[in-house]
Amino acid sequence: MKTILAELLTIGDEILYGQIVDTNSQWMSVELDKVGIKVIRKTTVGDQEDEILTAFAEAENRADIILITGGLGPTSDDLTKPLLAKYFNCDLQINEEALAEVTEFFVSRGRELTEMNKRQAALPTACSKITNPIGTAPGMWFEKKGKVFMSMPGVPHEMKKMMTERVIPKLLETFKMPVIVHQLVRTVGIGESFLAEKISNWEKALPPSIKLAYLPSLGEVKLRLTAFGDDKGQLRSMIDHQVELLKPIAGEYIYGLGEEGLEISIGKLLKQKGLTLAVAESCTGGYLSHLITSVPGSSDYFLGSIIPYGYEIKMRQLGVKPEILEQNGAVSEPTIIEMANLVRAKFNTSIGVATSGIAGPGGATPDKPVGTVWIAYSDKHHTVTKKLQLSKDRMINIKLSSAAVLNLIRLNLPNS
Amino acid sequence: MKTILAELLTIGDEILYGQIVDTNSQWMSVELDKVGIKVIRKTTVGDQEDEILTAFAEAENRADIILITGGLGPTSDDLTKPLLAKYFNCDLQINEEALAEVTEFFVSRGRELTEMNKRQAALPTACSKITNPIGTAPGMWFEKKGKVFMSMPGVPHEMKKMMTERVIPKLLETFKMPVIVHQLVRTVGIGESFLAEKISNWEKALPPSIKLAYLPSLGEVKLRLTAFGDDKGQLRSMIDHQVELLKPIAGEYIYGLGEEGLEISIGKLLKQKGLTLAVAESCTGGYLSHLITSVPGSSDYFLGSIIPYGYEIKMRQLGVKPEILEQNGAVSEPTIIEMANLVRAKFNTSIGVATSGIAGPGGATPDKPVGTVWIAYSDKHHTVTKKLQLSKDRMINIKLSSAAVLNLIRLNLPNS
Repeated sequence: MKTILAELLTIGDEILYGQIVDTNSQWMSVELDKVGIKVIRKTTVGDQEDEILTAFAEAENRADIILITGGLGPTSDDLTKPLLAKYFNCDLQINEEALAEVTEFFVSRGRELTEMNKRQAALPTACSKITNPIGTAPGMWFEKKGKVFMSMPGVPHEMKKMMTERVIPKLLETFKMPVIVHQLVRTVGIGESFLAEKISNWEKALPPSIKLAYLPSLGEVKLRLTAFGDDKGQLRSMIDHQVELLKPIAGEYIYGLGEEGLEISIGKLLKQKGLTLAVAESCTGGYLSHLITSVPGSSDYFLGSIIPYGYEIKMRQLGVKPEILEQNGAVSEPTIIEMANLVRAKFNTSIGVATSGIAGPGGATPDKPVGTVWIAYSDKHHTVTKKLQLSKDRMINIKLSSAAVLNLIRLNLPNS
Repeated sequence: MKTILAELLTIGDEILYGQIVDTNSQWMSVELDKVGIKVIRKTTVGDQEDEILTAFAEAENRADIILITGGLGPTSDDLTKPLLAKYFNCDLQINEEALAEVTEFFVSRGRELTEMNKRQAALPTACSKITNPIGTAPGMWFEKKGKVFMSMPGVPHEMKKMMTERVIPKLLETFKMPVIVHQLVRTVGIGESFLAEKISNWEKALPPSIKLAYLPSLGEVKLRLTAFGDDKGQLRSMIDHQVELLKPIAGEYIYGLGEEGLEISIGKLLKQKGLTLAVAESCTGGYLSHLITSVPGSSDYFLGSIIPYGYEIKMRQLGVKPEILEQNGAVSEPTIIEMANLVRAKFNTSIGVATSGIAGPGGATPDKPVGTVWIAYSDKHHTVTKKLQLSKDRMINIKLSSAAVLNLIRLNLPNS
C-alpha cells in the first residue's frame, strides 16, 4: 500500500516574525501520524502573494495532501482565500450555506453581522465548504488530480475541532489507508534512556508490524505503540498482548494507559477511594497545587494548601516545631515529615504531601546545592520521604519536584 | 539598502512527526527580526537524504542566510553534517581545534571520550568552525556566492547561546545591515483592539522610520517600537520621544519598558518599598503563587499562601465568618474582602490578595456563570475589589485571574 504523504503549510507574517508560536503544526503532525499519514514537510510563509502561490505549487509536487492553516480572517491582509481561487482558476462567490452559518453565528450571540463578516461566506467556487462548528471562517476542500488541498482557520481550537470532526474522517474516506491501532503507555519516575535499557529486550522482540515511539516530557516518558494492517480486531489484540508483556518489565513505572496525565489519573484514584488531599508546598511555590487543580472537579478530593514560603511561616502557619527547623534546616527530612503530617492534620484530610528544597538560583549551601529537594507523603498508616537531586534550573526543579510528588501519591495511596 | 533575507531550516523526524515542539524557530525569528534580518520562510524536513539536499538548494535560491538546526548529534541517523559536506563538495575531516574542545568538554566533567564523541569533531573542510560554548556539537559556517549557510545544534540552550554570542555578531559583520533600535512597552489590563483604538492617533503619527508591532499574550499586550537608520543615538532619541508621547495616552495601562514581565516588575516594587505579600487563592488554585514564586529571590517579599479550595477550609484555615459565606456564597464581594484581609493578618504582611470564582467547567449557578471571578487587594490603608467576567475555559480563567491580581497589586501598592 502506498504511503500517503502530507505537507503542512502555515501562512502568516505573525508566525514568520515570531510574534506567535505555531502550536498547530505539531498537533496536526501527531493527529496525522495516528492515522498513518506521513508528514514529509512543514512550511511557513508570510502574507505575500508570490510566496504563497509558489508554496502551493511546491507542496503539490511533493505531497498527496496539503493542509493549509492561517490567513483566513476577514481583514484585507488575509490572502489565503483569494489566492486559492487564483490557484484553482475559479471565482470567489458568496456560498449561501456558508452565509446562513455565519449569520446564525452572529445572530445567536446577539451581535450584528457587518459587511466584513459577510465576506467570510465568499468561497472559491472550486471548493467544497467544510463547516466551522465554532467559528466564522469555513474550511475549504479542493481536489486536483488525486491530491487534496484543505484550508483551515489558524485559530487553534477552531482548527482542532474542524480537523478531528471533519477533515481526518474525510481524508480517510478519500485515500485508501491502512487500519491503524494505537496505544499510549504512560510512565513516570524513570528517564528515557534508563527506560529504553530496561525494556530493550521487549522492544527488540516487537513484531515488525508494531512501531514504538518514545515521547518524553518533564518527569514523564510516554511510549506509543502503533500497529498497521487490515484487521482492526487483530491489531488491537496484538497491541494488547504486547502491553501485557511490557507490564511486568516496566513494573511500577507504568501509571496509566491512554490519554490521561498523572494529575488526572491520581484525581480519579482519590475520588474512587473516597480520599482527600492537602498540600504543604514550599520550593514548588504553588505549582503542585496548580497541577492538581488544573483538573476539572478536583474540588471533590483536593481541600487546599499552605505555601509556607517564609521560614517563619513554616512555624507560625503550619506549626513546624522551631527546634526541628533550627537543628535540621527547612530543607531536611525531619522538617519535610513534619510538614506533610501537619498539613494533613490541619486540613483533616486522608493524605498530606509536602515539598521543601533549593529551587535556585540562590539559597544553596555547601551540603545543599541548588536542586536539592525533599518531598514527603503522609497518611494515617505511614509517612514516606524522598530526597531529589535535580538541576540548576529553577523552573525545571519546580516542575520535576511537583511531578515527583504526584508519583509519590500514586505509589503510596492506601486502599481507603 | 537591500533587505537581507533568511530561511530557517529545521531537520529531524521528531519534529516532523510532532514528537517534540519546535520552539527554536520562533526564538530565532524574534532575534533576527530585532537586527533587521527578514525571515521569509521556515521549512522542516525529516531525516532523509534527498529531502535535506533539496531543501538546501531551494533555500539557497530564496534567501541570503540559511540557518539550519538539528541533525547534529553523534548517532548515525544525524545526517546534517555529511550532507553539508556533500552539498559543499568537500570531505569530512577531524578538526583539531574542535577535537580539543570536545575532549576538554568531557575531561572537565570527569567523563570518558568515546569514539562516537570524537566523531563530533569531524567537520566539512569547507566550513569555519563555530565553537559551541556549552555543548559538544560545533556550529558550521559556510559561505557561497555571497550567501551564508550556518548549521547549529537543535538543543535549545546550545543553539540560543551560539546564536546570540557568535552567529548574530558574525552575520552583522558579513552583511551590511542598517542600525536598529528597539523598545518594548508593556501594557496590562486592556485588550489588543481597545489598546489599538486608544493609541490610534499616536500610531498614525509615527514617523515612517518607526515600525510598531502588537505582541499580545494572556492578560498582556506588548508594543514593540523598532527604528531603522544609520545613527544609533538619533534612533534612540526618536524612539524615546515617541514613548514619552505614548505614556499619557496609554496611561496606567503601561506597567513597564523592556524585558521584565509583570511578576518581576511587581517583585522589584515590593522589594524597593520593603513590602511583604501573602495570597489567599481559591479558583486560581496555586497558579497565582506559582507566578509570584517563579521569580528568583521572591522569598524576599513573598511570605506565603493559603489555598482554601474546600468551602469549609475557607472558614477553618482562613477564618472567613460562616455567616458571610452563607449569606453571600464563596464567590462574592463580602467573602473576597474577608479573604484578602484575613490572609494579610494571618501572615502579618503589608499586602494580602485573594481570588474566588467559578473556573469551570462545573460550579456555575444562574447568577454566577462560569468565568465569574472576584479578586481583592488589601493593605493597611484600604481594600480594593474587582469582579471579572472571563471565559468558558478553565485554564484561561485561571491565568487571566492571576494576571488581574498582579495588576491590582501594581495599581494599589502603597508607598511603604
